[in-house]
Order: sequence, then structure tokens, then C-alpha cells
Amino acid sequence: MNFKEEMRNLTTLVDDYLVKYFDRLNREVPEKRLVESMSYSVMAGGKRIRPVLMLAVTKMLSGDPQEVMPFAAAIEMIHTYSLIHDDLPAMDNDDYRRGKLTNHKVFGEAMAILAGDALLNEAFSLLFEASANAGDKMEHWVKASCIIARAAGRDGMIAGQVIDMESEGTQVSATKLKTMHRKKTGALITASVIVPAVFLGLSEDKIKALTEYAENIGIAFQIRDDILDVEGTIEELGKPVGSDERNRKTTYVSLYGLDGAKEMLREVTRKAVESLDVFGERAWFLKEIAYYIAERRN
Amino acid sequence: MNFKEEMRNLTTLVDDYLVKYFDRLNREVPEKRLVESMSYSVMAGGKRIRPVLMLAVTKMLSGDPQEVMPFAAAIEMIHTYSLIHDDLPAMDNDDYRRGKLTNHKVFGEAMAILAGDALLNEAFSLLFEASANAGDKMEHWVKASCIIARAAGRDGMIAGQVIDMESEGTQVSATKLKTMHRKKTGALITASVIVPAVFLGLSEDKIKALTEYAENIGIAFQIRDDILDVEGTIEELGKPVGSDERNRKTTYVSLYGLDGAKEMLREVTRKAVESLDVFGERAWFLKEIAYYIAERRN
Repeated sequence: MNFKEEMRNLTTLVDDYLVKYFDRLNREVPEKRLVESMSYSVMAGGKRIRPVLMLAVTKMLSGDPQEVMPFAAAIEMIHTYSLIHDDLPAMDNDDYRRGKLTNHKVFGEAMAILAGDALLNEAFSLLFEASANAGDKMEHWVKASCIIARAAGRDGMIAGQVIDMESEGTQVSATKLKTMHRKKTGALITASVIVPAVFLGLSEDKIKALTEYAENIGIAFQIRDDILDVEGTIEELGKPVGSDERNRKTTYVSLYGLDGAKEMLREVTRKAVESLDVFGERAWFLKEIAYYIAERRN
Repeated sequence: MNFKEEMRNLTTLVDDYLVKYFDRLNREVPEKRLVESMSYSVMAGGKRIRPVLMLAVTKMLSGDPQEVMPFAAAIEMIHTYSLIHDDLPAMDNDDYRRGKLTNHKVFGEAMAILAGDALLNEAFSLLFEASANAGDKMEHWVKASCIIARAAGRDGMIAGQVIDMESEGTQVSATKLKTMHRKKTGALITASVIVPAVFLGLSEDKIKALTEYAENIGIAFQIRDDILDVEGTIEELGKPVGSDERNRKTTYVSLYGLDGAKEMLREVTRKAVESLDVFGERAWFLKEIAYYIAERRN
């Protein structure tokens, strides 16, 4: 199997699960506009990097992708809620994301706030229900759910959003930039990689190797974002380019220059790939994901 | 023991737990402003009705209040996040709550959105951690947590907020008003009463009796709110009175008149109290809470 094929397989698994999930919500919930607003953003053409990573790790470890689907869906819902709230006028005030109007531009601010809240709530609700029905695997489920909750909260993603907000308009040090990204985007990416490992009871040293992989692709993801904001096109990105410079945001490019950022990107990608050597040939797809993240055009 | 004494005891238990909890967060989390914003609203003088109900039911059923404290704290955090988001300019646009500036007036809109998100996330994080450490009671914890998650989400509180938002400026039927309140405030109140019962393995018919109690005090709570908006004073309420009429909101008073609303309040309070007869004398405090809700001045 080649990379593109496997990527399509896993993305389809995620999309199918989410489509069915929101179809069911739409049948069950009388407040149709709420479900519409929630699913609008979940179905807005995201790359599904986090759930795909989760399924890829599961397959590498010979686990059953179907079994971890609730985790994968939950993490995508959490990611989506954070985008909806990030785009709000009081936050980044973005009108477009991935070439589509942002949630509040379609449904209004109040509904966008509530749809975000509902997605966060739904993610945890889904995890609790799945845990309740997990039988003798309940303990694994609960432990893995703790990892997601921590990664999403005041030690993880939300802390990163706060640092980002407080840094606005100020020059940020390299250390602070890394901390911000480690929390804002890195924490959920790392959780996506670690959760199936914990769920499947992987050894400590192998979890450490996976963590190193996850942290490095998390950094790579952000460096690539910063590079694309300079080198990408509006068609590729579905949003205006050059916005970092206009907003005087500190980025890997503003700190290290375009060449410096590209060099760093190669370095962290190499580290990510190397840390998977311990898994042998079964790691091929995760390694390819690292290259994909470093080379993506959007 | 009299009602006031027991009320103070239980409120103090809740307050002490929350103070310690946020002290710990403040030590652990580097983003001090986030924790400050979260705890500002949690400590803003709420009546702690939901956690007190939870502890009261636990005591009536001879359970250990300390054991359910994580549930009690989680439900108060969820309630608080919903108030923070409800007060936002895009939602109700309120400057004051309980005589204090609302969260976004003190910390800004962006931080208020994130502090709300963080409180919701923290509540579930707390429940997952408590479940993970619950040993042979894990299944009870997970099952009870499911109830909270459902009550807070798209079938419960958030659905109620959506109905409220969509009803703005329109005449609402009595049925729709009841549905809205049943979800917006009733769901979390019912969860507060039911969670310890499920956790302690109470029989189905007694859970049914408690549910009837909870649903009726939930309605009573809202009717009293509507009456206070007409009869209360700004000093008692810590916010402007008469706002329902100014905003042309449909309320129990606008639908049934002041006397009609008072009659309904007596009726649902009577029902709430009667449904506890099956618990004998041990129900005295919960019965007193029903009267307290019907007679409170703020």
C-alpha cells in the first residue's frame, strides 16, 4: 500500500464515523440549528491529522482502528471547537477558514459560542459513554481519556491559546514561542499519538519514542504553517497569506528567517522519523506522515 | 440541626473544596491570568445550590459527602462556565452578576471565552481523574459522570441556551418556555440530585421519586427568578430588576400574571416536597431546600 492510499483509507474511516455520528445527532436533537452549526465546522474540510495519527498508531501496534474511533472522533471535536472559538471576533476575528466562512459568519456569534461549547461537551460525553460500555477495558479507556482532557485544558491547548492571546502585538522570545506552540497545537497532537499506545498498554520506552515523534511533528506542523504563510497562495490555503507579517506575529520565519525555518523543519522532521526506528518497518506510514506534514501545501 | 446551620455546613464544604482546588491550580498553572479569570467567576458568590443538593442527597442516603466532592465541584464549574458564556456581549451582554462585574468586563471577552472553555474542560478532567482513581467504584463514577455530561450538553443545558437565544424577541408558548427551562436550568439541577443516587446504587423507584423532586424544584427555581425580576430590588439581586419586561422576555409572570405565577410556585413546591415522603424524616433538609428556593430573595 502506498502513502496516499492509506491516508485516504484512514481519512475515510474518520469522515464516515463523523458523518454517521452527526446524522444520529440530527435525528435525536430537536435543536436542529445547533447540530447544523456543530457539524458545519466538523465537516468543513479539515485534514483530520489528529484522528488519522491516532488510527495510524493503533494499526502500527496491531490494535483495532474501529475500537479507538470514539477517541479519534472526540479529539477531532475538541480540535474543531477550539477553531470555532479561536475565529470569533473577540479572538482572532477570522472570516474564512479552509476557504469557507467561519462558523460565526454563518450562524452568528452566539450560536458559534454555543456550538463550540457543545462540541467540547460532546467529546467528553462520547468518551464517558464509551468508557461506560467498555467492560473490562474500562480502566484503559478512562486512563486514555484523562490524557485527552489534560491535553485540551488549562495545561495544554487552552493555556497555549492564552499565551497566544497575551503575546499579541508583542515581540515573543524563541522559548516562549515554542512553549506556546507546544501547548496550543502540540498537546493535542501528542495526545493523539499517545492515547492508543496507552490504551493498548505499550511499554514505557516505546511510549517515550512515540512522544518524541509526536512532539517533533507538532513543531514541524507549526514551522510549516509559518512558512506557508509566506510562500503559500490564497488558493492553496483558503485564507489570506502574509497575515502573520501584517499582524506582526512572532513566527519561526520572523525569528530565524525563511532559510533558517526551513533548516529547522528538516531537522525536526529527521528527529521525528528517527525516533520511530525502534518500531521497524511497521512505522513506515507514521514516518511518511512526518514528511507529509513538512511538505504539505495547505 | 436547623436548616440555616446545615445549609452553611454544606456550602462551606463546597467553598473550601473549591478554594483549595483553585489554589492548587494557581500553583500548578503558569498562565496565572487564566486561573484568575476561572476562579473569579467560581468565587463570585454563587449560592452553590447544585453542589449543596448533591451533598444533601448523599447525606440523606447515608453516603460520604467527601466522596462525591469531585462531582459537586465539577457541576459548579459547569454551571459557572455557562454563566460566563451567557453574559458575553454576543449572548445576554450583561455587565453585572450577583453585584459583581461579569467576567468579560474584568478580563476581556477573549479571556472570558477561554476561561469558560477551561472550566468546562476542567470539570470533565476532574471527573476522569477521579474515575481513574476510584478503584472498584470506577463503574459507578463513570456512569454518574455520563449523567452530568448529558445534562450539560446538546440534550440539556446547551440546548436550553439555544432555545433561549432563538426565542429572543418572540412570544413563546407555555410549553416551549417549560422545555427551555427544563433544559437550560432543570437538567443540571436534576443531575445534581440524581448523580449521588446513581453513584450509591439507589433503587429505580426511589430514583424516580428524587427525579420528580428535582424537576419540580427546577421549575420552582425559575418561577421564583421571574417573580423576583418583578418584585425584587437591585440590592437583593445584585443586578437590575425589571429586565425581563424591558427585554420583552416571556416568563412565568408574563404568561400567568404575578398571582398565577405565585400559585404555580406553591403548587410545584408542594409536589417537590411530597415526592420525598418515601424517604421519611431523613428528607427534612431537601424539603427545606424546596421551601428555600420558593422563598429566596435573591
